Amino acid sequence: MTKPLSLPLICRPDREGEEPLAVQLYRDLLAAIRDGRLGQGHALPSSRAAAGELGLARSTVTVAYDLLRAEGAIEMRRGAAPRVVTAPVAPGPAVAMVPRAVSGRGARMARNPRRETGPAQGVMAPGEPDEGLFPADEWARALRRAARRRHGGAFAYAEPWGIAPLRRILSERLRADRGIAAEPDRIVVTTGTQGGLSLIARLMTEPGERAAIEDPGYLGARVAFEGAGLVPVPVPVDAEGIVVEAVPRDVRLVYLTPSNQYPTGVRLSHARRAALVRTARETGALILEDDYDSEFLWRGREIAALSAEAGGGEAIHFGSASKVLAPALRIGWMVVPGDLVDPVRAALRNQGLMANLHAQWALAEMMESGRYRAQARRIARAYEGRGRALCEALGPIGGLSVRPPDGGVQLAVRFDDGRSEEAAIHALGRGGFRPARLSAYCMEAGARGLVVGFADATPERIARFARILGTDG
Amino acid sequence: MTKPLSLPLICRPDREGEEPLAVQLYRDLLAAIRDGRLGQGHALPSSRAAAGELGLARSTVTVAYDLLRAEGAIEMRRGAAPRVVTAPVAPGPAVAMVPRAVSGRGARMARNPRRETGPAQGVMAPGEPDEGLFPADEWARALRRAARRRHGGAFAYAEPWGIAPLRRILSERLRADRGIAAEPDRIVVTTGTQGGLSLIARLMTEPGERAAIEDPGYLGARVAFEGAGLVPVPVPVDAEGIVVEAVPRDVRLVYLTPSNQYPTGVRLSHARRAALVRTARETGALILEDDYDSEFLWRGREIAALSAEAGGGEAIHFGSASKVLAPALRIGWMVVPGDLVDPVRAALRNQGLMANLHAQWALAEMMESGRYRAQARRIARAYEGRGRALCEALGPIGGLSVRPPDGGVQLAVRFDDGRSEEAAIHALGRGGFRPARLSAYCMEAGARGLVVGFADATPERIARFARILGTDG
Repeated sequence: MTKPLSLPLICRPDREGEEPLAVQLYRDLLAAIRDGRLGQGHALPSSRAAAGELGLARSTVTVAYDLLRAEGAIEMRRGAAPRVVTAPVAPGPAVAMVPRAVSGRGARMARNPRRETGPAQGVMAPGEPDEGLFPADEWARALRRAARRRHGGAFAYAEPWGIAPLRRILSERLRADRGIAAEPDRIVVTTGTQGGLSLIARLMTEPGERAAIEDPGYLGARVAFEGAGLVPVPVPVDAEGIVVEAVPRDVRLVYLTPSNQYPTGVRLSHARRAALVRTARETGALILEDDYDSEFLWRGREIAALSAEAGGGEAIHFGSASKVLAPALRIGWMVVPGDLVDPVRAALRNQGLMANLHAQWALAEMMESGRYRAQARRIARAYEGRGRALCEALGPIGGLSVRPPDGGVQLAVRFDDGRSEEAAIHALGRGGFRPARLSAYCMEAGARGLVVGFADATPERIARFARILGTDG
Repeated sequence: MTKPLSLPLICRPDREGEEPLAVQLYRDLLAAIRDGRLGQGHALPSSRAAAGELGLARSTVTVAYDLLRAEGAIEMRRGAAPRVVTAPVAPGPAVAMVPRAVSGRGARMARNPRRETGPAQGVMAPGEPDEGLFPADEWARALRRAARRRHGGAFAYAEPWGIAPLRRILSERLRADRGIAAEPDRIVVTTGTQGGLSLIARLMTEPGERAAIEDPGYLGARVAFEGAGLVPVPVPVDAEGIVVEAVPRDVRLVYLTPSNQYPTGVRLSHARRAALVRTARETGALILEDDYDSEFLWRGREIAALSAEAGGGEAIHFGSASKVLAPALRIGWMVVPGDLVDPVRAALRNQGLMANLHAQWALAEMMESGRYRAQARRIARAYEGRGRALCEALGPIGGLSVRPPDGGVQLAVRFDDGRSEEAAIHALGRGGFRPARLSAYCMEAGARGLVVGFADATPERIARFARILGTDG
C-alpha cells in the first residue's frame, strides 16, 4: 500500500472554468492515474480529507470519486481509503504504431477523377444549377410545415426507402411525364443518383465483373463502378447516342444517359433504345438509365424514358431533384424491378443511403401542388435562353464544334483544330471560369475540348468566355 | 416503298386528354412503329394531309413528326413523304429473358436481421426516441432560415463532407463534451452512423478479413461488416464492457459502444479503454467508437470518449443527431485520423453519403446557440425518469435481471429462469409492444431476454408491460 498523495499537487480546480468542479477534479485525477503519478494500488484521501485539502465541498469530491469508480479506475470499500486499481497507460516500452491506410478496395472507392477536370473555383462549371433560380421562400414554407407535423414511424426508422406520399406522387409523375408504369412500391427514394448507382453497382455484381459506360460519359458512374471493383468498359457515342452494337455481351451493367447524353447532349435514337432493351433481354445485363435532367429538357420532354420500353425488369431508372431544385437537398429516386425491391430496400438501409425526412415531405408537397413542374418549366426557359446564347457566342469561333443542346445545364465544345485543352482551361481559369476538359470524361475516345456549364451564364460572362476562347484559348 | 397508311386507324387523339394533342399523336405513331403496324420504309402522309385526315392543326402534326425525327424513328427529306426508318421492336422470335438477381456480394449487403428481432408494429421498441420531445417549432424556424439563405458552392457539390460552420461547432462540442481534440478538417458529416460504418468498413479492409464486434452487440455494425464481405468476430461483454483480452490479434476493425454498451447498458472501464488502445496500437486494428447516445447519458457524461485516449489515429469516433433530435434527419458525423481525411472525403462523395444541406445548417445553428445541448439535457431528464420507472416495475418480477441504465433509450432484461423469448415476445406483441429478443443481438453469447425501449414509455404502458411479462411472459 502506497502513502496517500497530496492532492493539491495533482488537482488545480478552476472556479471560473467552464466545467463543474467535480468534473475538473475527476479529469485531473484520471490524468494522474494514466500517466502513473497515481500508480496502481495508490490510496486516495477520504472524500472528507480531500475536500479539506482542496477547499471544495465534500459532495464535489464524492461525485468525482463516483465517476472514477464507475469507470473502474478506483475502488471504494467501506471503511478503507479509495484505491487506484488501474495501471498507467503511458506507452511504457514504446509500442510501435502500425500505420493505418485504406485497403486496395478502399483506394478504388476513393478515386477522385473530378479533381483533374479543371480549375477548382469559378463560374460556368458543368452540372451546376443556378442558385438564383431556387424557390427559396416556397421551399422554406414547405420545410416548415414538414418539420411541424407528426410523422409517426417515419420520424425514426420506418420506411427508410422513402415516405409513402413521395413515392405515390413520384409514381404518378413518372407515368405522366416519362411513360414509366411503376407502382409506388417499386420506387425507392435515395440520397441522389450517385448513392443509387454505387449501391446498385455493388448489389448486382461481383468484383472483377465488367460494366459498360458511355465514352465520353458521366464521371459519377465511372467512380461508382470502380468503387464497386468493376471494370468499366467504354462504349463509343455517336450522333444517335451510345453505339449499342459495341456493347460487349459479357457486361453485367450498362449505364447511359439516353435523354441527353452526358456530356455530348445527344439523344439516344429510338432504334438504339429498342436494340439496347433487346440486348439486355438476351444477355441479362441490367440497364441503368440516368434520366438526370429530363425534367427540363426544352425539346423532347415528350419522349418516354428508356425504362418505359423495358417492361420486363431490364432497367433501373434514376432521377433526382438535384437539377430542378438543388443538389444539396440530397434527394433522388430509383425505379427498380419488382423482384429487386426487397434486396434494394434492405441494402439501402444497411448502407445508410436514406434521404432527409423533411426534404422528402417538402418535395412531395411541391410535386402534388404542381409547383415542382412549374419550377421545372421556369428553369427550362431560363436555361434554354442561356444555352442558346452560349452556342451563338461560340459558333463563330473557328476550329470549334458546338451543338445546340436540347436541355441540361452544360454543353460540349469540341476542338477540331488541335488546340490544347490545357491552354484553354488555363486561360479560362484565370478569367474566373471553371469549364472541364472534355478528355477527362473519355476513356478511349479521343475527343478534346471543353464541357461548359451555362446555368449561371450571364450575357457578360458569355461574351467574356467567348473572347478568351477566341483569343487565348 | 409502302403505300401511305390511313392515319385514323392508328391515331385517336383525345381533345379532353391530359397531354397535348401533338404528344398523343407522337405516342400513337411511335407505338405503331414499335409493333410493326408502320414497318420500316413505310411512308407517312405529309403533315398537311395528316392534319386533314385527323382534323388537327397542321402545326400539331409537324410537332409530332419533329419528335419522331428527333428520336430517329422517321426521316424527312425535302419534297418526299416522311418515312419510317426504324424496325419494329416486337420481340419477334421470343427472346428468353435472362433473370436478374442480386449477386453473392449483393445478398450479403441485403441481410435484414432486424426482421427477426420481434414484432413489426408497436410501442417501446428499442433505439427509438420519442417524437413528442422533438423541438418541432424551433427546428422549423431554423430550417426556414437555412432554406432562405444563399449557400454558394454548398448549394451544389462543394464540401460534400459537411458545411464548414457545422464542422466548426462540432469540433468545439466534441472537445468540450467528449474530450476529443479534433480540428474541423478531421470531421466528416454523413447521413448517420450506419452510412459511416458501412463506408469505413469497406474503405479500410479487403473482403474476407475479420472485424470484432461486441457480443451481444449492435445489429447495424454487424450488417455493415457483413455487407463489406467481412467476417464478424464476436467478443464477449462482461460487467466492465467488451473483454479486450478476447479481441483476436488479427482483426482489422474493432467496433464498440463504450459509453453505454448496446444493448446491455454497461460502461467500458478505464482499464479496458487503455488496454484496447494499446492493442490497436500494436496490431494496427482500427477502433470504431460508436458514441451513439453519449449526449444524453444521465450518469457519466463527464467521462471522455474512448477516442480522446487514442491520440495517434487508432480510432474513428461516430456520433449523430438521431437520438437528441430525430433519426429521420439523417445526420451523423465521424472524426477520422488526419491521414484518412482525403480518402474518406472522396469515398463519401462517390458513395453518395452526403447529408441534407438545410438540416446541416439548422443543426449548426442549434448547436451554436446552446439549444442543442439544452435539448439533450431536457430529453435526458425525461428518459431518465422513464427508464427508472421501467426498471422499478420490472424489478419485482421473478426470474429477470434488470440493470438500471445510465442513459440511452433502451435496456436489456435477461431471463434467468429459462423462460421462452418467443412466448414473451408473442404476449407483448399482442399487447401492442415491440420489444426485441435479446438473442437476436447475440452471435455466440447465450443471453436470452428482451431489449425494451423506454423513450415512449408512459406509466400506463410500463404497468401494462410489466403485467404481461409477469403473467403471460
